Amino acid sequence: MKVGILGATGAVGQKFIRLLRDHPWFEIDALGASERSAGKKYKDATNWIEDVNLPSSIAEMTVANCKPEEFGNVDFVFSGLDSSVAGEIEEAFAKAGIPVISNAKNFRMDNTVPLLVPEVNPDHIDLIKTQKFTADGSGWIVTNPNCVAVPLSLALKPFHDAFGIDTVILTTMQAISGAGYPGVASLDILGNVVPFISGEESKIKPETQKLLSELTDGKLSEPQINLSATATRVPAINGHMISATVKFKKTPSSIDEVKRAIQNWENPIADLDLSSSPKEVIKLHEDDRFPQPRLHADQEGGMQLHMGRLRESEVFDISFVAMAHNTIRGAAGGAILNAELLKVKGFLG
Amino acid sequence: MKVGILGATGAVGQKFIRLLRDHPWFEIDALGASERSAGKKYKDATNWIEDVNLPSSIAEMTVANCKPEEFGNVDFVFSGLDSSVAGEIEEAFAKAGIPVISNAKNFRMDNTVPLLVPEVNPDHIDLIKTQKFTADGSGWIVTNPNCVAVPLSLALKPFHDAFGIDTVILTTMQAISGAGYPGVASLDILGNVVPFISGEESKIKPETQKLLSELTDGKLSEPQINLSATATRVPAINGHMISATVKFKKTPSSIDEVKRAIQNWENPIADLDLSSSPKEVIKLHEDDRFPQPRLHADQEGGMQLHMGRLRESEVFDISFVAMAHNTIRGAAGGAILNAELLKVKGFLG
Amino acid sequence: MKVGILGATGAVGQKFIRLLRDHPWFEIDALGASERSAGKKYKDATNWIEDVNLPSSIAEMTVANCKPEEFGNVDFVFSGLDSSVAGEIEEAFAKAGIPVISNAKNFRMDNTVPLLVPEVNPDHIDLIKTQKFTADGSGWIVTNPNCVAVPLSLALKPFHDAFGIDTVILTTMQAISGAGYPGVASLDILGNVVPFISGEESKIKPETQKLLSELTDGKLSEPQINLSATATRVPAINGHMISATVKFKKTPSSIDEVKRAIQNWENPIADLDLSSSPKEVIKLHEDDRFPQPRLHADQEGGMQLHMGRLRESEVFDISFVAMAHNTIRGAAGGAILNAELLKVKGFLG
Amino acid sequence: MKVGILGATGAVGQKFIRLLRDHPWFEIDALGASERSAGKKYKDATNWIEDVNLPSSIAEMTVANCKPEEFGNVDFVFSGLDSSVAGEIEEAFAKAGIPVISNAKNFRMDNTVPLLVPEVNPDHIDLIKTQKFTADGSGWIVTNPNCVAVPLSLALKPFHDAFGIDTVILTTMQAISGAGYPGVASLDILGNVVPFISGEESKIKPETQKLLSELTDGKLSEPQINLSATATRVPAINGHMISATVKFKKTPSSIDEVKRAIQNWENPIADLDLSSSPKEVIKLHEDDRFPQPRLHADQEGGMQLHMGRLRESEVFDISFVAMAHNTIRGAAGGAILNAELLKVKGFLG
Repeated sequence: MKVGILGATGAVGQKFIRLLRDHPWFEIDALGASERSAGKKYKDATNWIEDVNLPSSIAEMTVANCKPEEFGNVDFVFSGLDSSVAGEIEEAFAKAGIPVISNAKNFRMDNTVPLLVPEVNPDHIDLIKTQKFTADGSGWIVTNPNCVAVPLSLALKPFHDAFGIDTVILTTMQAISGAGYPGVASLDILGNVVPFISGEESKIKPETQKLLSELTDGKLSEPQINLSATATRVPAINGHMISATVKFKKTPSSIDEVKRAIQNWENPIADLDLSSSPKEVIKLHEDDRFPQPRLHADQEGGMQLHMGRLRESEVFDISFVAMAHNTIRGAAGGAILNAELLKVKGFLG
Repeated sequence: MKVGILGATGAVGQKFIRLLRDHPWFEIDALGASERSAGKKYKDATNWIEDVNLPSSIAEMTVANCKPEEFGNVDFVFSGLDSSVAGEIEEAFAKAGIPVISNAKNFRMDNTVPLLVPEVNPDHIDLIKTQKFTADGSGWIVTNPNCVAVPLSLALKPFHDAFGIDTVILTTMQAISGAGYPGVASLDILGNVVPFISGEESKIKPETQKLLSELTDGKLSEPQINLSATATRVPAINGHMISATVKFKKTPSSIDEVKRAIQNWENPIADLDLSSSPKEVIKLHEDDRFPQPRLHADQEGGMQLHMGRLRESEVFDISFVAMAHNTIRGAAGGAILNAELLKVKGFLG
Repeated sequence: MKVGILGATGAVGQKFIRLLRDHPWFEIDALGASERSAGKKYKDATNWIEDVNLPSSIAEMTVANCKPEEFGNVDFVFSGLDSSVAGEIEEAFAKAGIPVISNAKNFRMDNTVPLLVPEVNPDHIDLIKTQKFTADGSGWIVTNPNCVAVPLSLALKPFHDAFGIDTVILTTMQAISGAGYPGVASLDILGNVVPFISGEESKIKPETQKLLSELTDGKLSEPQINLSATATRVPAINGHMISATVKFKKTPSSIDEVKRAIQNWENPIADLDLSSSPKEVIKLHEDDRFPQPRLHADQEGGMQLHMGRLRESEVFDISFVAMAHNTIRGAAGGAILNAELLKVKGFLG
Repeated sequence: MKVGILGATGAVGQKFIRLLRDHPWFEIDALGASERSAGKKYKDATNWIEDVNLPSSIAEMTVANCKPEEFGNVDFVFSGLDSSVAGEIEEAFAKAGIPVISNAKNFRMDNTVPLLVPEVNPDHIDLIKTQKFTADGSGWIVTNPNCVAVPLSLALKPFHDAFGIDTVILTTMQAISGAGYPGVASLDILGNVVPFISGEESKIKPETQKLLSELTDGKLSEPQINLSATATRVPAINGHMISATVKFKKTPSSIDEVKRAIQNWENPIADLDLSSSPKEVIKLHEDDRFPQPRLHADQEGGMQLHMGRLRESEVFDISFVAMAHNTIRGAAGGAILNAELLKVKGFLG
């Protein structure tokens, strides 16, 4: 399938290019960016910061404007657009009949737009049918969540299924790549911790609730979760760490029952054999020192969720840490996995 | 007054030397370390890692064994000993009639030993009178808390006085200097987060409860606090950050009332004008990005507590972050402040 | 004396404010910045990144435009302006009869402008008399060198006096603060080395030659030094390290003679007792592991030059490393020391 | 072929295991370590610090003593032993008829032992025939160079062939992984530069000269190179950077001729198609900001040499930077490439 990338010169756009280099199903056919970049060769329009070589075929492509008429050949587009422009552009593509698989936040909380993590809520793709961008349903939007909501929902899903989630108190330790490029100034973060990330904390509860919702008759019924979050920035490159303490609706009999909830959890897309899907979706580390961003964020192509420190809490039921690669599982890789699911489910023609 | 330092060659011992260089009341008279170091000049026995010059008068001192008979001239000793040896040695000094002001954990939870943060529980020094190390009361032990319990108790004290502390859920982001030297391997922490610090989490609740206790008739009555802690290591040099969410016994009417609890809190030792006491004990930052270890840990000589992000919590009453210099306020500087309080209160002759 | 600061909101401007907080001679009377900041309170116009509190008296000052007429009360100004605007503004101040002590590069290589490091070439201040900005000589410009040329010239000066400098091959490892704020993106430098700093290498030779020049009858005669430099950025906060291999014009008899050249070198301003002058201008470390930016850059108020690893070279005469605080000795602190020299020499009235 | 690993629990040993996981020719059959580890399962004897999972088949292997009689089935061994024990153990294996492909320094400068970088001096393997460990020649030793000499010799080789190397002045910026584990203390290197690495500088000249030698009639004739080196440690994880200024015996006509020397250089093992050999052995970056350890050290499996900043020097002929992965190309990966060369050349049966 031929794909386009909106916001191709930014950090998320570069990650899309990197991850799609050798993708078995998707081939990059068009790259869109701002007016400033349009018309230039991609290699001249971007400051490539990935640690693999920019593929030469991509390097020589001419950057287009983010307008549907310049993406005539593509089957769908990935959007790594900044939220300041994503709303308008993504809507234009959807209305033009070009499906948009977006990493931007603009449509995440729209009632008709799936906020999708394939292992968590694959059935939510049916929301697409309620969208009205085109009369024939050919244009639609699917989004992936914020880079904290992704690992959080993955970590909570087995517990939610087994015990119900009542309350979550969490602190994040987020890697610098989460702020894009140039992003965080080195003088702000080298040897330091910054106890605030603008706009981050307020996304976590609503996105997590939407992800854990049940879809019935085209309507989402959301669980009501009490959630209190503190988001901090630390000097790690990739991999957001979450330290969480959780109260369940139904108290487990023991910590072993909690572990079994993970072990017994069945990945609903396991049999689809999607290219970007990790073999082991949730890896539960028994070594107290693990997981660590530097050692584990890249495992299984950066798509694995790592949990550790799982233990009883004196206050609620359990405490644990969860960590995943923020720009792969938490952004571009998640969007690609969404596309893979949508393809096998027949939404991409 | 003449003071000795036990464990003088370690990281805490070096910090004692640094902080006592120009102290108005205390002069270093003896340095004690292990057999391996005893008999050597201090400069040859230590690997000085402070970022100020080793004072030449200290450099030329001969290191003694940690035996009371080799500390004949001192009025009291500071102990920066490792906990593997601190118990026996500190007891020997106390029994020999030499007061011990210790940073080690060994006697912290002893019923007769003050676990002291002067701004939190100055009256606990009266516990000294219940100690039995010597018949005449000349030898005794006072301890300072773990480097997380110090900032936590300072942060909670105004709230405890105003509303009572019911429950605390916290995650720490601790600096590498907390592990001493050589301490944390650079391969473990550069660009990384380690979600575990051995032995750390279990100290936080009992020490905090003891610090917030009331002393009546020589007995401590401890508040019962529900507390769940996750301790992590991050690549900061100095300054432990705590992210906490707290439930009070009595619900404040508003976040303003919570802020007023800090503003109205009276430092009980303010009028003593102790040399190591910060002018402003608790600094509440209004800028969401603050406090930060690199910018604020050294302020007011490393003795100030920095709070920030104070806000209502959806789950409990409030969330906030607190940060203090772990090896100054949280270790050697705290012990020196303890000594200053003990001196003005007449315990040091 | 009343002083103004041009470029007060930038990183160098902030450093000026920090260093002048408690200066015995100079009091900040005016703060100038761009139109965007002019008219605002300083605290609202700047993003204060120093690790000391912004003095409240400064915080409330209103920022002026960088125009001489808005600096009516000052005796002179410090300039921390960006080079893109420094040329025009500094000239305007000089022409208005207000002396300018500048950290910018614009006038550094001007034949009539002293490029000044007080311990290296204090007599160059007489060049001021050749300046024509005003008819009565009341307005003039003095500059301090690039943050590499400062420590390099300080390190070479004793050798130049003793043996003559023939050739220098050097590699720098420069701290992130050298690029200002926001400066270096954290994604570019965390756990990394960048082997290039734009515009840096080409300044080192001409500035070093000018610093080591002799002034005779108002003319500088420059030594001809062969110099090859590679400038790199490393993840240190403050302190530029230089690794240098040097060939002298006259071969020393031994490495001891080289060391004696440092020991015997006489600081020409030692007897002036300037406030910002370090007691020991050049500290030669004997421990192979030293100097290090983190341990030594702040010593003696950040104004000391640290040398180490001094040894014979198989290729040239000697190799050594030199390190100094780049934003204090190499920028704002150097400019303040220049002002102190100019004051005692009668140039500042 | 069945291979053993000596020193299997250390940092280099772990890297051997990682790189040999999926090797097409070599299968790990035996793991040797110190007495302390022998008899334990590998997973219990090691503190696995690689960022890929420890293969489960390796995890369950029982660690042997480093004695030839416990390595009965192997065709040869890789040695990642510490130099304090490598001499004796490697000699014992060679005498027992088991070829040793070693990363240790002990035999590097032995006249009969190849110090081998396959792209630089593949013909040196014939030195093996001059070894006397066994009567029938079945046991022998081949070594790979120090982690700086590897990238330096690769960078110099095309220049040496074209112009002859006369003089090299270099400064290294070396990553923390070069010191093994636990290796460098985080307090020593976080936000810092250490201008010394014990034992490092003295290896660079002799090893580079041996690597660039000509082998004639079983004797090496070494080029005489003037070389002055300063080795520093910086807070990068992997990838040693070298900043070098070089004088040739024959002056090139232009920098273009110098670049052509790299472009025209023919990799002598290109047609052997070795599994660990990079497609492009030397990558010359044109972007001044490159190479960088974090972006480029892992490219081509960590086996590529990256050069950049190639330019004329005012003092000598040229300056450049060179960078390669220190524990792959500069250690375990280099040894594996040596083994691949030795296999196709018939030395491994």
